[in-house]
Amino acid sequence: MDNLDDVFVPHAYDEQAIDLGEVRLNHVVVGADQNPALLLIPGQTESWWGFERAIELLAPRFQVFAVDLRGQGRSTRTPGRYSLNTLGNDLARFIALAIGRPVVVSGNSSGGVLAAWLSAYAMPGQVRGVHCEDAPFFASETNPRYGHSIRQSAGPIFELMSRHIGDQWSIGDWKGLQAARAKDAHPANRWLSQAVEPQQNLKEYDPEWGRAFLQGSMTANCAHDRMLAQVRTPMLFTHHMRAIDPVSGALIGAISDFQVSKVQELVTAAGQPFELVQAPDAAHSMHATDPERFTAILSRWAEALP
Amino acid sequence: MDNLDDVFVPHAYDEQAIDLGEVRLNHVVVGADQNPALLLIPGQTESWWGFERAIELLAPRFQVFAVDLRGQGRSTRTPGRYSLNTLGNDLARFIALAIGRPVVVSGNSSGGVLAAWLSAYAMPGQVRGVHCEDAPFFASETNPRYGHSIRQSAGPIFELMSRHIGDQWSIGDWKGLQAARAKDAHPANRWLSQAVEPQQNLKEYDPEWGRAFLQGSMTANCAHDRMLAQVRTPMLFTHHMRAIDPVSGALIGAISDFQVSKVQELVTAAGQPFELVQAPDAAHSMHATDPERFTAILSRWAEALP
Repeated sequence: MDNLDDVFVPHAYDEQAIDLGEVRLNHVVVGADQNPALLLIPGQTESWWGFERAIELLAPRFQVFAVDLRGQGRSTRTPGRYSLNTLGNDLARFIALAIGRPVVVSGNSSGGVLAAWLSAYAMPGQVRGVHCEDAPFFASETNPRYGHSIRQSAGPIFELMSRHIGDQWSIGDWKGLQAARAKDAHPANRWLSQAVEPQQNLKEYDPEWGRAFLQGSMTANCAHDRMLAQVRTPMLFTHHMRAIDPVSGALIGAISDFQVSKVQELVTAAGQPFELVQAPDAAHSMHATDPERFTAILSRWAEALP
Repeated sequence: MDNLDDVFVPHAYDEQAIDLGEVRLNHVVVGADQNPALLLIPGQTESWWGFERAIELLAPRFQVFAVDLRGQGRSTRTPGRYSLNTLGNDLARFIALAIGRPVVVSGNSSGGVLAAWLSAYAMPGQVRGVHCEDAPFFASETNPRYGHSIRQSAGPIFELMSRHIGDQWSIGDWKGLQAARAKDAHPANRWLSQAVEPQQNLKEYDPEWGRAFLQGSMTANCAHDRMLAQVRTPMLFTHHMRAIDPVSGALIGAISDFQVSKVQELVTAAGQPFELVQAPDAAHSMHATDPERFTAILSRWAEALP
């Protein structure tokens, strides 16, 4: 942690930090302020620049704000304080203090869960609509109302990172991590074991995030069924590659079809329009792997919002 | 819950609600807006009007804002979402949207813990100083860094209320509560067993609050030692009646002398002025039982703030 400044690399857009009280939130602003405001929220282990190519495509249509969440990228580390409620309130403050007008939100993975959090719990009038890009509703909870839990989905990935890298990289045993991944039962861990060096985004990530999901503190006081029942804006959900492993029964992917059907039920029952885009051929981070497709889906939906 | 409107009674000042997004916060505003702003935060089981007599004394010097926290008084009930981080962010939003200028904060009991939360975690420049009136730092945690835990202090009171009254008064067995209190080992429960009818403030209180303290969800992701180490304003602490029961070892009162010494250490180490006023003869809610003394202590300290 002491030499985190050595970790970062330059990017195509100017980064800046805003003091939100507890944290300084690193972010970029790209595009003309006459355009509609769009907030992009990265997923776990991702920094704002995971959206770098998408931003280039989105900037002609939107004023794009892309952030590093607390504990990721250049934003503040907050040991013991990673939760949807603290992260969500960071974003509510960011909208109030940095954006200053109603915004469309698009978040990937955990960032998509936070997009729903903003729809349910942000300050009045802050959010126009939320795009949840392959967001792990229920599947990132320790004790979900519906379907697979974190232990039955991405938990094994975070467990090994937490054990071998440690909170705030306090262990940092990359070789030990890769050896453990190579022997692990979870296919994603075996696939991840091939990297010789830590990826740039991982170097910028506080593994306490993953531990907080595993142990349930990330979702404490924020049950997903309750949150989705309080959504107050339209929601677009894009559902990407997923499968159920026939041997372990585990969910390989972010969220199951059953769980998406429950998201749809809850948001619809809350009186909000829900649009589901099926993209079973898309990677989890479509915004990074296929930014053209991501931009087309998001722009079409966002431009039809009231 | 359905007939909660029948519960409320009129008060000396006009109540109003503000929409903060997730909750509507009931509050009163008393005093001229040329005066310094003062935010009063009630303790657990208390509504804003516990400060009614104090407000009369404070209003010539301050513009007083007194609130009902979520789950108390006329503010919104939020099952599953009672925590220092959600309650604290309600207050940060309230300061931003209703007060709109830097404020002095005085909170009693749990409200005093929230005053410290605001000092540590509110938006930049919102808080000038915080008065923690007999606040249970550490002693309201399930696993505190220092000294007595909730189970060794007020926990037995909340346990019986939760069991016999239930979340959102879903059980409501007052006679059963009083019978259980009369037989309980905790002296406060025996003392409380004398009331024939529920007090007005208790009727306005959601007992899920107490359960959240007992089970640790109220303080999840908000360790008190960490919070106090991040305080960013001066703090006044008034320490009221307390004793250690020689038989059970339990803390009778809000916070022990040892724990207050640790509050002082942490706030001082954070570089902030800390003033301790010893009031071992005062009741826990000095603002209600002796509003003149409360007003004198608070006003002298607040008027010396930069």
